[in-house]
Amino acid sequence: MSAVKRGLLLGAGSLLLLCSNTAEAGEADLRIAPFRPFGFEWWLMLGGMLVCCGGLAFGFAMYRRLKSLPVHRSMLEISELIYATCQAYLLTQGKFLLLLQVLVGGVMVYYFGVLAKKPAFDVAVILLFSVLGILGSYGVAWFGIRINTLANSRAAFGVLRGLPWPASSIPLQAGIAIGTVLISVELLLMLGVLLFLPNRLAGASFIGFAIGESLGASVLRIAGGIFTKIADIGSDLMKIVYGIQEDDARNPGVIADCTGDNAGDSVGPTADGFETYGVTGVALISFITLAIRAPGGTQADTDALQVLLLTWIFFLRAVMVLTSLGAYWINHQISQRRYASRTEMNFEAPLEQLVWMTSGLSIALTYAASYFLLKNMAGDPTLWWKLATIISCGTLAGAVIPALVRVFTSTKSRHVREVIEASREGGASLNILSGLIAGNFSCFWLGLAIVALMAVGNAFAWQGAQNLMISPQAASVFAFGLIAFGFLGMGPVTIAVDSYGPVTDNAQSVFELSQIESLPGIEAEIERDFGFIPQFAAAKHYLEDNDGAGNTFKATAKPVLIGTAVVGATTLVFAIIVMLTEGMTTGLENLSILHAPFLFGLILGGAVIYWFTGATMQAVTTGAYRAVEYIKQHIRLDQSGARASDEDSKRVVEICTQYAQWGMLNIFMTILCITLAFACFDNYLFIGYLIGLAVFGLYQAIFMANAGGAWDNAKKVVEVELKMKNTPLHEATIVGDTVGDPFKDTSSVSLNPVIKFSTLFGLLALEVAIQLSAGGQETLRQSAAWVFLALALVFVYRSFYSMRIKTNAAV
Amino acid sequence: MSAVKRGLLLGAGSLLLLCSNTAEAGEADLRIAPFRPFGFEWWLMLGGMLVCCGGLAFGFAMYRRLKSLPVHRSMLEISELIYATCQAYLLTQGKFLLLLQVLVGGVMVYYFGVLAKKPAFDVAVILLFSVLGILGSYGVAWFGIRINTLANSRAAFGVLRGLPWPASSIPLQAGIAIGTVLISVELLLMLGVLLFLPNRLAGASFIGFAIGESLGASVLRIAGGIFTKIADIGSDLMKIVYGIQEDDARNPGVIADCTGDNAGDSVGPTADGFETYGVTGVALISFITLAIRAPGGTQADTDALQVLLLTWIFFLRAVMVLTSLGAYWINHQISQRRYASRTEMNFEAPLEQLVWMTSGLSIALTYAASYFLLKNMAGDPTLWWKLATIISCGTLAGAVIPALVRVFTSTKSRHVREVIEASREGGASLNILSGLIAGNFSCFWLGLAIVALMAVGNAFAWQGAQNLMISPQAASVFAFGLIAFGFLGMGPVTIAVDSYGPVTDNAQSVFELSQIESLPGIEAEIERDFGFIPQFAAAKHYLEDNDGAGNTFKATAKPVLIGTAVVGATTLVFAIIVMLTEGMTTGLENLSILHAPFLFGLILGGAVIYWFTGATMQAVTTGAYRAVEYIKQHIRLDQSGARASDEDSKRVVEICTQYAQWGMLNIFMTILCITLAFACFDNYLFIGYLIGLAVFGLYQAIFMANAGGAWDNAKKVVEVELKMKNTPLHEATIVGDTVGDPFKDTSSVSLNPVIKFSTLFGLLALEVAIQLSAGGQETLRQSAAWVFLALALVFVYRSFYSMRIKTNAAV
Repeated sequence: MSAVKRGLLLGAGSLLLLCSNTAEAGEADLRIAPFRPFGFEWWLMLGGMLVCCGGLAFGFAMYRRLKSLPVHRSMLEISELIYATCQAYLLTQGKFLLLLQVLVGGVMVYYFGVLAKKPAFDVAVILLFSVLGILGSYGVAWFGIRINTLANSRAAFGVLRGLPWPASSIPLQAGIAIGTVLISVELLLMLGVLLFLPNRLAGASFIGFAIGESLGASVLRIAGGIFTKIADIGSDLMKIVYGIQEDDARNPGVIADCTGDNAGDSVGPTADGFETYGVTGVALISFITLAIRAPGGTQADTDALQVLLLTWIFFLRAVMVLTSLGAYWINHQISQRRYASRTEMNFEAPLEQLVWMTSGLSIALTYAASYFLLKNMAGDPTLWWKLATIISCGTLAGAVIPALVRVFTSTKSRHVREVIEASREGGASLNILSGLIAGNFSCFWLGLAIVALMAVGNAFAWQGAQNLMISPQAASVFAFGLIAFGFLGMGPVTIAVDSYGPVTDNAQSVFELSQIESLPGIEAEIERDFGFIPQFAAAKHYLEDNDGAGNTFKATAKPVLIGTAVVGATTLVFAIIVMLTEGMTTGLENLSILHAPFLFGLILGGAVIYWFTGATMQAVTTGAYRAVEYIKQHIRLDQSGARASDEDSKRVVEICTQYAQWGMLNIFMTILCITLAFACFDNYLFIGYLIGLAVFGLYQAIFMANAGGAWDNAKKVVEVELKMKNTPLHEATIVGDTVGDPFKDTSSVSLNPVIKFSTLFGLLALEVAIQLSAGGQETLRQSAAWVFLALALVFVYRSFYSMRIKTNAAV
Repeated sequence: MSAVKRGLLLGAGSLLLLCSNTAEAGEADLRIAPFRPFGFEWWLMLGGMLVCCGGLAFGFAMYRRLKSLPVHRSMLEISELIYATCQAYLLTQGKFLLLLQVLVGGVMVYYFGVLAKKPAFDVAVILLFSVLGILGSYGVAWFGIRINTLANSRAAFGVLRGLPWPASSIPLQAGIAIGTVLISVELLLMLGVLLFLPNRLAGASFIGFAIGESLGASVLRIAGGIFTKIADIGSDLMKIVYGIQEDDARNPGVIADCTGDNAGDSVGPTADGFETYGVTGVALISFITLAIRAPGGTQADTDALQVLLLTWIFFLRAVMVLTSLGAYWINHQISQRRYASRTEMNFEAPLEQLVWMTSGLSIALTYAASYFLLKNMAGDPTLWWKLATIISCGTLAGAVIPALVRVFTSTKSRHVREVIEASREGGASLNILSGLIAGNFSCFWLGLAIVALMAVGNAFAWQGAQNLMISPQAASVFAFGLIAFGFLGMGPVTIAVDSYGPVTDNAQSVFELSQIESLPGIEAEIERDFGFIPQFAAAKHYLEDNDGAGNTFKATAKPVLIGTAVVGATTLVFAIIVMLTEGMTTGLENLSILHAPFLFGLILGGAVIYWFTGATMQAVTTGAYRAVEYIKQHIRLDQSGARASDEDSKRVVEICTQYAQWGMLNIFMTILCITLAFACFDNYLFIGYLIGLAVFGLYQAIFMANAGGAWDNAKKVVEVELKMKNTPLHEATIVGDTVGDPFKDTSSVSLNPVIKFSTLFGLLALEVAIQLSAGGQETLRQSAAWVFLALALVFVYRSFYSMRIKTNAAV
C-alpha cells in the first residue's frame, strides 16, 4: 500500500502546486434568484419543509413499529450480529471518506477562497455543506442498515406462521421508511438553503453539498459493491465445491455475505439515491439560474420567473413525497386484503402494483400542481401542461423502464427461461452466453425507450418554452433536466422496491443461520411464547421464492438510477457549456463532432468506462479468490449442525473489507486524476469526455445490470420452481450467477455515482483550468494535464497489476 | 422462415414505394479530378497496375508451390474433404448474396437512374461495379480457402520430420499469398477505374464498388462468424462431457469445426480485409474530391492538386505491396536460418518480427515516396513530411496495436496467466470474470493509443494542410483518413498473420482426423515414399503449440481491422456532412451535442451495437445447442479408433449452415431497415447514429476480441504448457474458451463490415431522404421512417424470439 500512499501525496502535492500558481480570478458565482421572505412562494416552500418533517416522523414511526414486531431470540441474535458487522464496515468507510474529503475539500477551499475570493466565513459554510452532503449519504445509509437488520429477522420469523404475506409486507415497510426518510432529509436541507441562506452563499453551498453527496455515494457504492460480491461469490461457489446450501451455517463466508447484502444492496443504493436526488435538484437549479430569462423583461422579471420555476420544482417534490406515501398506503390496504390469508402469492405483484399506482398518481398531481402554479406563466396559458407533460415523460420512464427490465430479468421472462434452457445442453458455457444476450438485448430496447421519452419531452420543450431561454437550444437541456426530475418523482417508492431485495435475501440467511429448526423443544417454545405452531418447510419456501421478487426489483431500480445519472449529468454539462461559451454566444462550433478534441473526448469517455468495469471486477475477482481459498481451508463439514466459528467468519469479513478498500482506492484516485487531467488538456475535449462517460456508462450499466439479473433469477428458478438443486443444471446456473454478481451489483451500479462525481468535480476542475489559461499560464495548465494523466495511468496500471492474485504456483 | 420472407417482401415494397414518390433531383455526382492521359501521374499509376499484376503472379506461384509440397494421402483426403464442405458453404452464401444484391441493386438503380438521371449505360456500369465488389470479396475468399486447405495438410505433414519450422513457414506462405492477391486485385480494379473509366462514371463506380464489397463482407463475416463458432463450441463441449480430445475423429462435429475455421477465420477476414482496403480508399478519394482545393487558385489548379494527392495515395499503396513482399522475404530468410534446424521455437517470434519489419520499412518508404511526389506541393516545401508523418501514425498503429493486444492475449501475457490462476480456486466463474477483465482493460489502453495516434496525426494536419481544405476543420478528417490508410499500409502482412490462425488450427485437426498414426505400416511407408521416419509425438506438440501463436495473431489483426473501419467510417461520414452542410457553409451547429437529434442519434448508435452483439451471439447459442444435442445423440464412443460417419458429419455442417443463414438474415434485414429508418427521420440524427455506431462499435469489438483471445490462450497454456488436460482446471478454461468463441470470432469481427455498410449504404439512403424533403414530401419521408423502423423492430424481435431454443421441456 505504500506506493498508493506515495501516489496520494504526489497527487495532493501536484494539486496544490497547480492551485498556488493560478492567476487571480473574478467572481465565479452561481447566482440564485432570491425568494421574497414571507411571500407566497416562501410560504409554499415552508409547507414543503413541514411535509419533510412529516416524512421523517413517518420513517421513525416505521422504525419503532418494525422493532416491536415479534421475533425469536435465535433469529434476533443473528440479525444483531449482522448489524454489528455492518457497523464495523461503515466505520471503516467513514474514516476513508474523511481522508478523501480532506483532498477534495482542499480543492474547494482553494477554488472558493483563493479563486473566487469569498470571505473565510462563506468558504466555511460551503465546506460545511460538502460535509453535510457526505453526512447525509452516510447517515441515510446507516438508517437503512439499522432498519433492514430489524426487518430481516422479523420477516424470517413472520413467515413461520405458514403464510407468505409477512415476507412481502415487512421488507416493503422497511423500504418505504428508508425511501421517505432519504427524500425528506434531502429536501429539508435543500429547502433550508433556498429559504434561509443569504443569496451569496446559496449557489456555492449547493455545489458543495452535491460534491459531498457525490463523493460519499461513489465511495459507498464502489466499496460496498466490491465487498458484497466477494462475499457472495465466496459463499455461492461452496455450493458447487461441496454441494452445500447457500446459507449453510458451517460456511464461514455466510456472515460476510449477509453483511455484504446490506453494504452493497442497501448502503450503496441509499447513498446513491440520496445523491441522485440531490444532484438532479442541483442540476435543475443551476439550469434555471443560468438559462432561464423573462423574454423582453427586466432583471426583476427574470428573477420572478426563476423563483416561480424553482418553487414549482420543489413544490412538486414535496407533493410527490405525499403521493408516494399515499400510494404505498392504498397498495398496502389492497394487498393485505388480497394476500394476507393466502398460502401462495405472487411476490412481484404488490411491488409492481405499487410502482404503477405511484406513477399514475404522480402524473395526475404533476398536472394539478403545474396548473396551480404555472397556469399563467410568462403570459402563456399553455406552458403549464407542456412542462407537466415533460415531467410526466420522466415519471412514466420510472415505470416503463422497470417494466422493460422485467422482460429480461423476471423469473417469468423468456430470456431467463432461455438461460435455463441453454444450460441444459450447453452447461455453464451457454448459460453465460445466454445471460449476456439478455443484457445486450435489454440495452437495445431500453436505449430506444429512453430516446423515445427524451424525444417526446424535447418536442414539448420546443412548443414555447424555448422563448424563456438564453438560447433556444437550451430548451432541449431543460427538457432533459425535467425528465430526470420526473424519473425521480416517485423517489421514496423507487428506493423502497430497491431496498426490498437485501431484506429478503438476509431473511433467508437469518433463517438458516439461526438453526431454529434444530433447537430442542422449539415448537412448544414458540407456541407458548408467540401463540402459533411454526411451519418450517413452508417458511423456507416462501423466503426462497420471495428472494426472486427481490432480485427482480433490485434489477429494475438500477436502470432508473443510471437513467437519472445520465440525464442529470447532461443537464450539468450544460452548466459547463454555458460557462465555456460565455452564455452560448461564442465557440459553439467547438461542440461539434468535426472538432477533433471533442471527438477525442468522446472516445476517451468510452475508454474510462471500460477500464472502470474491468477494475471493479478485478477487485472482486481477487477478493473472491482469497475468500474461497480461506473458506476451503477453514470450513468444517464433518461437524454436521455446527456453526462456523466467529473468528473464521470475521476473517472472511476482513478479507472482503480489505479488497474493497484497496480496489476502491485505486479506482477513486484514477477517477480523480483523470478528471483533472482531461479538464486541463482542453475545454472541449473535456466536454466530449463527460458526454462519452455518460452515454457509454448508460449502456454498460444497463447491460451489466440486466445480464446479472437474468443469471440470478435463472438460478432462482432452478432452485425454487424446478427444485433441481445439486444437479449439473444447478451448477451451470451458479456459474452464471457468480459471474453476474459483480456485473449487477458492483460495476453497473457504481457507474452511476462515478459519472456524476466526474461531472460535478469536473465543473470545478475545469474552472481552475480556465483560470490558468486566462492568466496566461497555458504551459502550467498543459504540464498539470500531463502530470495528472501520468498519475492516473499509474493508478490504472495498479488497478490491475497490483490487484492481481499473487501465488507461488508455477503458472 | 415464411415470416422472414414476408418481411423481405414488405421491405422491398416499402423501398419501391419510397423511391417511386421521390421528387426529381439534380446532379448528385462525385466528380473525380481527371488524370491527364499519358501524363506523368498516369504513367505512375500504370506502373502501380504492373506491380499488382506482379502481386497476382506471386500469389499464384505460391499456390503452385504449396500444392507441390509433399503430403501423405490420408491427410490430403481430409483437407480435400474440408475444402469440399467449404465450397458447399460458399455456394450457399453466394446464392444469398445474389438475393441481397437484388434488393440493394434496386436502391442503386433508382438512385442513379431516376434520381441522378444518369443514362442507362452509366447505371449499368455502376451496377456492374457493385457486382464486381461482391465478386471481389467472394473470389478472394475462395482463393483463401483453396490455398488454406492446401497448406493445412502440408503443414501437418511437414512437422512429422520432427522439426517445428514447417509449422511456422507453411501457414505464413499461404497467408502472404492471400494478402498479396487480395491487395493486388483491389488495387488493380481501383486504378483501372481511375485511369480508364470516363470521369462521369468514376465516382459513382467507386461508390457502387464499395457498397458491393461491403455487402459481401458483411454477409460473409456474419454468416461465417456464426457458422464457425457453432461448430467450435459443439466440438469443444465434448471435451467436458466425454473427456475426449478436441479433434477426436469419432466426434461428428470435427469436420464442421474445420470448415468453420475456414468459413469464419479465413473467408471472413479476407472478405473483410478486401472491403476495408477498398472502402478506406473510396473514403479518401471522396474526401480529396470533396474537400481539397488549391488555395486561391483556379479549378484547374484544384484539379491538379487533387490528381497529385490521388497519385500519391495510390502510388504509396503500390509501393507498400512491394514493401510487404520485401519484408516477408527478408523475414523468411532470417527465420529460416534461425529456426529451420531447431527442435524448439517460439512460434510468435517470426510473426512479430515480420510485423515490425514491415512497419519500419513502410514508414521509411512513405517518407521517401512523399518526398518524391509532394516535395513542392502547393508551394509549401514542408507539407510532404507532415503528410508522411500522419500516414506513419497509422502504420505505427498497425504495429503498436498488435503489440498492445499481445499484452492481453498472448500465452505469455500476465492477463492470460491471471485467467488461469483465477480458475484454480474459482473454476469457471472466476475464469469468465478474469477474461472479461482482460477485455475491459484492453479497451482502455487501446482506446488511449488510438486517440493518441489520431491526436498526433491531427496536430500535423493543422500545420499547413488546413489551408488546402474547403474549411480548416476538414483537416482533422483528412488526418483520420490518412491514418486509416496508413493502418492498412502493411495490408498484405496484416492479412497474412491473420490467415495464419485458421491454417494452424486446421493442421491440428487434419493430423487427428487422418488417424495417420494408426495406419498399418505407416512408418515404413513414409520412409519409403518420403524419405524420413515420422515423429508423431513431436509433431503433435508442435502443432498444438503453434496454434497458440495462431490465436494470438488472429487476435492482433482484429483491432487493426476495426480501427480502420472506425477511422475509415469517420472519413466517409464527412462526405455526408459536406453534402448536408452545402460544403460546410450552413447548419454546422446541428452537428453539436446541444442539438438534441444529434445526441439521440449518438445514443441510438449504442443501442444498435448492443443489439447486434446479442443477436449474433443468440444465433451461435441456439445453433450450438442444436449441434451439441445432435452430437451427443450420434457420437459413438464405444468404437475406439472409428471415425464419425460422413452422414453425421454432414448433418452437423447443415445445422451450422442453417443457423448461420437464419441468424444472418434477421441481422442483415435489421441493419438495412434501421439505416433507412434513421436516415429518413432526421439528417443530423443519422449523422449522430453513424458516429455512435463507430465509437460504440470500436470498443465493443476490441473488448470482445481481446477477452476471447485471453480465454482461448488460457486454455492453450493449460493444455500445452501445464499439460493438465481433463482436469477441473482444464474444464474451467474450456468454459471460458467457448464463451470467448462468439466474442472474438462472431460478434467482434462482424461489427467491422457492419459499421461500413451502414455508412456507405446510409450515404445513398440519406440522399434519397433529402431529395424527398427538397421535393416537399416531408410527410412521405416521415412515414417511410416509421415503416422502416417498424420493420426493423420486427426483425430485432425475431432475432431473439424466433431464434430461441425451442423445446418441449417444461421450463
